[in-house]
Amino acid sequence: MFAAFAIVVVALVSQTAARYSADWASLDARPLPPWYDEAKVGVFVHWGVFSVPGFGSEWFWWHWQGQQPPEQKCVSYMSKNYPPGFSYPEFAPRFHAEFFAPEDWADVFKASGAKYVVLTAKHHEGFTNWGSPYSWNWNSEDTGPHRDLVGDLGEAVRNRSLHYGLYNSLYEWFHPLYLADKKNGFQTQKFVMHKLLPELYNMVVRYRPEVIWSDGDWEAPDTYWNSTEFLAWLYNDSPVKDTVVTNDRWGAGCACKHGGYYNCEDKYTPGQLPQHKWEKCTSVDTLSWGYRRNMKLSELMDLPAIIEDLVGTVALGGNYLLNVGPTPEGMIPAVFEERLRGVGAWLKLNGEAIYASKPWRVQAENTTVPVWYTSKGNAVYAIMTARPPRVTLQLLAPKTSAATKVTLLGNSNPLPWAPVQPSAGLTVLLPELPSSSGQAWTLKLDGIQ
Amino acid sequence: MFAAFAIVVVALVSQTAARYSADWASLDARPLPPWYDEAKVGVFVHWGVFSVPGFGSEWFWWHWQGQQPPEQKCVSYMSKNYPPGFSYPEFAPRFHAEFFAPEDWADVFKASGAKYVVLTAKHHEGFTNWGSPYSWNWNSEDTGPHRDLVGDLGEAVRNRSLHYGLYNSLYEWFHPLYLADKKNGFQTQKFVMHKLLPELYNMVVRYRPEVIWSDGDWEAPDTYWNSTEFLAWLYNDSPVKDTVVTNDRWGAGCACKHGGYYNCEDKYTPGQLPQHKWEKCTSVDTLSWGYRRNMKLSELMDLPAIIEDLVGTVALGGNYLLNVGPTPEGMIPAVFEERLRGVGAWLKLNGEAIYASKPWRVQAENTTVPVWYTSKGNAVYAIMTARPPRVTLQLLAPKTSAATKVTLLGNSNPLPWAPVQPSAGLTVLLPELPSSSGQAWTLKLDGIQ
Amino acid sequence: MFAAFAIVVVALVSQTAARYSADWASLDARPLPPWYDEAKVGVFVHWGVFSVPGFGSEWFWWHWQGQQPPEQKCVSYMSKNYPPGFSYPEFAPRFHAEFFAPEDWADVFKASGAKYVVLTAKHHEGFTNWGSPYSWNWNSEDTGPHRDLVGDLGEAVRNRSLHYGLYNSLYEWFHPLYLADKKNGFQTQKFVMHKLLPELYNMVVRYRPEVIWSDGDWEAPDTYWNSTEFLAWLYNDSPVKDTVVTNDRWGAGCACKHGGYYNCEDKYTPGQLPQHKWEKCTSVDTLSWGYRRNMKLSELMDLPAIIEDLVGTVALGGNYLLNVGPTPEGMIPAVFEERLRGVGAWLKLNGEAIYASKPWRVQAENTTVPVWYTSKGNAVYAIMTARPPRVTLQLLAPKTSAATKVTLLGNSNPLPWAPVQPSAGLTVLLPELPSSSGQAWTLKLDGIQ
Amino acid sequence: MFAAFAIVVVALVSQTAARYSADWASLDARPLPPWYDEAKVGVFVHWGVFSVPGFGSEWFWWHWQGQQPPEQKCVSYMSKNYPPGFSYPEFAPRFHAEFFAPEDWADVFKASGAKYVVLTAKHHEGFTNWGSPYSWNWNSEDTGPHRDLVGDLGEAVRNRSLHYGLYNSLYEWFHPLYLADKKNGFQTQKFVMHKLLPELYNMVVRYRPEVIWSDGDWEAPDTYWNSTEFLAWLYNDSPVKDTVVTNDRWGAGCACKHGGYYNCEDKYTPGQLPQHKWEKCTSVDTLSWGYRRNMKLSELMDLPAIIEDLVGTVALGGNYLLNVGPTPEGMIPAVFEERLRGVGAWLKLNGEAIYASKPWRVQAENTTVPVWYTSKGNAVYAIMTARPPRVTLQLLAPKTSAATKVTLLGNSNPLPWAPVQPSAGLTVLLPELPSSSGQAWTLKLDGIQ
Repeated sequence: MFAAFAIVVVALVSQTAARYSADWASLDARPLPPWYDEAKVGVFVHWGVFSVPGFGSEWFWWHWQGQQPPEQKCVSYMSKNYPPGFSYPEFAPRFHAEFFAPEDWADVFKASGAKYVVLTAKHHEGFTNWGSPYSWNWNSEDTGPHRDLVGDLGEAVRNRSLHYGLYNSLYEWFHPLYLADKKNGFQTQKFVMHKLLPELYNMVVRYRPEVIWSDGDWEAPDTYWNSTEFLAWLYNDSPVKDTVVTNDRWGAGCACKHGGYYNCEDKYTPGQLPQHKWEKCTSVDTLSWGYRRNMKLSELMDLPAIIEDLVGTVALGGNYLLNVGPTPEGMIPAVFEERLRGVGAWLKLNGEAIYASKPWRVQAENTTVPVWYTSKGNAVYAIMTARPPRVTLQLLAPKTSAATKVTLLGNSNPLPWAPVQPSAGLTVLLPELPSSSGQAWTLKLDGIQ
Repeated sequence: MFAAFAIVVVALVSQTAARYSADWASLDARPLPPWYDEAKVGVFVHWGVFSVPGFGSEWFWWHWQGQQPPEQKCVSYMSKNYPPGFSYPEFAPRFHAEFFAPEDWADVFKASGAKYVVLTAKHHEGFTNWGSPYSWNWNSEDTGPHRDLVGDLGEAVRNRSLHYGLYNSLYEWFHPLYLADKKNGFQTQKFVMHKLLPELYNMVVRYRPEVIWSDGDWEAPDTYWNSTEFLAWLYNDSPVKDTVVTNDRWGAGCACKHGGYYNCEDKYTPGQLPQHKWEKCTSVDTLSWGYRRNMKLSELMDLPAIIEDLVGTVALGGNYLLNVGPTPEGMIPAVFEERLRGVGAWLKLNGEAIYASKPWRVQAENTTVPVWYTSKGNAVYAIMTARPPRVTLQLLAPKTSAATKVTLLGNSNPLPWAPVQPSAGLTVLLPELPSSSGQAWTLKLDGIQ
Repeated sequence: MFAAFAIVVVALVSQTAARYSADWASLDARPLPPWYDEAKVGVFVHWGVFSVPGFGSEWFWWHWQGQQPPEQKCVSYMSKNYPPGFSYPEFAPRFHAEFFAPEDWADVFKASGAKYVVLTAKHHEGFTNWGSPYSWNWNSEDTGPHRDLVGDLGEAVRNRSLHYGLYNSLYEWFHPLYLADKKNGFQTQKFVMHKLLPELYNMVVRYRPEVIWSDGDWEAPDTYWNSTEFLAWLYNDSPVKDTVVTNDRWGAGCACKHGGYYNCEDKYTPGQLPQHKWEKCTSVDTLSWGYRRNMKLSELMDLPAIIEDLVGTVALGGNYLLNVGPTPEGMIPAVFEERLRGVGAWLKLNGEAIYASKPWRVQAENTTVPVWYTSKGNAVYAIMTARPPRVTLQLLAPKTSAATKVTLLGNSNPLPWAPVQPSAGLTVLLPELPSSSGQAWTLKLDGIQ
Repeated sequence: MFAAFAIVVVALVSQTAARYSADWASLDARPLPPWYDEAKVGVFVHWGVFSVPGFGSEWFWWHWQGQQPPEQKCVSYMSKNYPPGFSYPEFAPRFHAEFFAPEDWADVFKASGAKYVVLTAKHHEGFTNWGSPYSWNWNSEDTGPHRDLVGDLGEAVRNRSLHYGLYNSLYEWFHPLYLADKKNGFQTQKFVMHKLLPELYNMVVRYRPEVIWSDGDWEAPDTYWNSTEFLAWLYNDSPVKDTVVTNDRWGAGCACKHGGYYNCEDKYTPGQLPQHKWEKCTSVDTLSWGYRRNMKLSELMDLPAIIEDLVGTVALGGNYLLNVGPTPEGMIPAVFEERLRGVGAWLKLNGEAIYASKPWRVQAENTTVPVWYTSKGNAVYAIMTARPPRVTLQLLAPKTSAATKVTLLGNSNPLPWAPVQPSAGLTVLLPELPSSSGQAWTLKLDGIQ
């Protein structure tokens, strides 16, 4: 039961901290710091050198020069637009970030209703968005922005009482030490010892992220990455030991099985209520996490689709981490800003059903229109993700009583309702539904089971 | 009377063409080719070297280096991001247009419901978007896109049965011959004879634009520009003599007074029904016509504002030319695409009230909510640009009769109505209004006066 | 007879100026201003956008994109080093001239012993090295150096009492108006009227060049270029009418026939004493006039070859115009500076035999080693361009007398000599010849015929 | 005695190799492989990212941004020519090396008469001229040339039977790990363990250099650099253990005291015959080792100065390592090629007195003109570095006998001579000295003491 699990979490966190040992049994037993489940909504930001070509996706380098055979579209883009021999690192000086105003970004993130923000501190390309001493001349202070992007955004985000997380890729597609280890069947750890771990410790101590969104783990086992040792340190001795949350990407086979909350796959959507706290990460641009110069409207999620996705995720106990890709100049494209503000506008009215909610006994039904349920205390929330075709809505899952009361969020007037069967289901007479750019409305049900 | 005027136009165009003489009395008497008034909606496209800095507006060069004192914001932007001595022409090689897909653009323009498209063939910077022989090495074929932008877009636009117009700036801020003429109090015409006119004739013959959207006229009288000679040729002998439409920017003092239709000022909105056909040009980005790399959502018109503006313009007899600024890579930013498609979606339902409509006896009233009137044949259209707060709407201007019939566009059911006074005004019982991203709904009134 | 011709020149110039008519008979009769023949040695400077690619030669653009088929070496260079679509005008912003110090250049030119300097004001590429109002955005003030190269060098050169000339190409390979005229069989003169002539007059009035080194004339007759009209103005009314010198490239068929002095072909060397004043232009870099980034030592003239060429040219009545190609950064490559200073060092000792000299009765003989003769007043100079193998030198051309005196320039001691035949030829006992980086030594012969 | 020392070297090398221990006593006792002393003349090549700005010297980065206060000339150069925020790593993509033809370079080096070539594999900037896995994205394969410069030049050089050496800087001005160690008073060795040593071993194994020209040692003691451990490995176990030569820059206080041969300081010239094999490194460009875009002739050594320097160095037992700085395009500037070929031309005639020579009993005298002595077997060579003013030359140091024979190199005829005192000194009657661009001539003295 998910709800029961959550209660246990709270209990454990409040007691004297035990020390974790560097094995999954111990680490997996760590209760998730409660802020995370309550937050429900986060903004994911993919920004890096990949934003400069802005073509295909943030995997551009790999698709162009890594995979065999390469993606023809990428090869062709480069050969048409760049001189022969132009290499990916040469994009870095064009990552100018001249318009990067962290306060403005943080304003937009705050306005989106998100409670946490996760930035790519280092993606698979290996470029660090701060001046990592282990990534000399391949980081945002030595070249390109000439700025501590991780630090500057963190400060602005925290000034708005948002939690701040960092995405970190364990592997780096083309790091020569990584490639050497890989060639050795991961029996050597040159990359891990000379690059990955020194850098990761440095990052945690310097920026104190409350989420470590690990990625790029799948080619090697967690023993190669020294993941359990790192997590034991993180949970026992790091400056964020009490508040930090991690995900489940710590080595081949870990996803959906070990770590903190589970991401499972990108854009993962469970079919039923999971037993473990999870998060759905997804992107407004359905084709990419990073900025694409040639994105078209038809490739983007519209607001109703986002709201529906968010609602379904929360109803199933998940957090919703919605991604946008800023431009290399440091702007959040206006269409993304519009989506984020749209989410915020919807949450302003309907957030009561989302933040700090718990999954209900039933997660969804589709009698009249699709309806998702959440709960908080004694209240149950039925969120319609489409405009009902008629003036009445039938809900079959709730068990009503005389004390049952129904209201539409945003309107304090109780709505007339009638039971469908003596104690099962009700028909609600809807008021005129206000215009909602999210195309979703919430009924609050008190006094039901 | 505007309606009468339009009828006269049709009559004149069909008779044997008279020759126009190079004076305003003759030129102003030319009837406007009827396609233009029927079109109502156009898309304006500002694209040029100014799209590369994409800062401030398409007037960047002037604000940076022309006006005295220069705009500090522009000076500072350049000194922070470019080496000393970097000059505006050096932006041109960065105008790549690598993603320019004229078919895609034209699809979007078609989907917007627009009937004509006007592209900046040459803005005040003097850079021509085609290979003008009079603008060697300062045009889109010799540098930057290495492509005939004017020709390529024209073909795609016309393939979709849209009319194609070209914006042309008479003056060029920094052309040395223009500056020399200006210094001479416009007593010399070196610029006009060596540059402007040869180029303009070349452009008309080569691309056969159906709109010549003239601009940049205000510093000198039409006699300097040789405007009347040019227009006489255009109307008498050019390959587009029968269909071409021009505006009113042909020399100091011409605006709102001479030429074809009137633009008067940019974004001009008349207080009452004008006597002469006019066009309102305006831009989704309220701060610029050209692309700005750092535009924010709050600086853009949202869809309801655009629809309201469009409706009011058409009700007052105007055409509505809505501008978007593509990126230097050749993309229409997604947020602009969203606006254009939003306009198209609205017009799909409500276009009957717009295209080929005429102003009605009354243009607007605001009894319940703001309502604009248009008419076509015997029908009158009342367009509400806000959702009425109640289930009924009162209109005072129409004079009803027994034959009066009211419907909501998109719904064939006649609506109940009742007269307010025996033959003046009516109260309509509204159905549930469908969701409209444009926030505007049209009542069609038959059998009224 | 050349000597007689020169005397006539002096006579004519000193009388009241007649007006020249725009025909060759009149123009060709103009005496050459005397400074030119006295100067003997000039420095030619090829500098322009072609210095940026610095590949092949200053004809790079034509070889790459003009001629059919193009030169494969150039095509390949571009495709290997630049993105597809990169165009020649895009080189211009990289013509920085950041180290251009005209005073330093002029110091080197002065040190070379040259008496005049000729700069490419505009080569066939059409880029003007000053802010020509007829070449907007394709000149050195609008882009690249952002500087008046023609003016700045002129001032420095004249401050050192050197004469200043300008090279001007009549045709421009890719000017669209020129191409249009050419297509019309040169029956139209759009290019000449809108571009060439306005610009050329502007250049003369602004910079007052004392040499107009015309080029690029051969595709069209002088009647197309309006050459005779221009020259009539130049000789009658221009600000340099009294001092200006021109060459012979004024239209197909003019070379070696009409104009001022004759260049005939590039690097032309006559077989015997010409009847008309001429100039040999040649380049230290044997493969190019413009800078080449990949020049090798073996492709350059060494100092002895230059001195021998200079001496032979002067002996045959010519002027010697030696070319160097500066870098796009504005430096004269050190190896060129070395050559120029080497010429100067040689002229310091031997200039008496060169400046203001006249051809002698005999121009050359090769009895012991190659010897060239010049004369001045009663003195005759025998210049050996190789070190004699023995301690004696035999000269057969001079007719000796008792008054005959022989010295080595740089050494005032009279040298012993003996007649070969009673009055024909002499054998000179040479002193030890000083080290000469030019490998040429001059005997001064007084009292001979 | 230097000669005796050399003989010992040969003896030791040929016996069974002893193992060296990681202390100076043991390492310093290693005999120098004999090829090095016999070679006498080498070419030094400074090439790296510093060649791109090509301003000031190869120390540009440090002068611009390292030292306090920075060198104003460098700061000003950057602020005038680059945008604010432009960083040194951003020069790397402009290091194209498009004309780099290692075969051509090697031809020039061979023609110079040099017997070894030393290339900067990594200068203080840290950029490696090969694809070092410890310098990801800051090496010549990942960016800029996209080529293995170290490997490609090595192959060409060795194909011409020249020895190949590599310059390696121990410190890197701006490496963050080095800076961290330095801040810790060199009590930590992060830089040495994670960067320097792994890379250095990799370099030796991969390229098998016969010279390791160490530099950048002076800020920290050899114990920080682990120099003795490295050298013990190099001498005992590396693939070049039998042939490799090193210099003396292995830690603060090592210069002129420990290691292989001694460089002491740059351009060091001893006052008398040193007891230890040494090398003078110097540069044609007196102001820089790396290419300078704005070098002038007056700043370069001319050939006579080079020859004199070389001769004096060899006479004093040193090797002469003459430096040239190639352009970022990969060319050896023609003026440097001219110097190198000039040295080669001189050595072709006089090399007998240089290669494999030993210092003589007396190194120099200056009775008539400056004379330097070398010896080989029983022959003694007296090299005049100026043209004697008279036909006789007096030498006081040689002790003559009846068997004494004197010849001028390049001329087999014995020269007349007479003793100055019965057995001390001689006066030689010189033949006419041939032209020598090096201004130095060699007398070979047989049968003297």
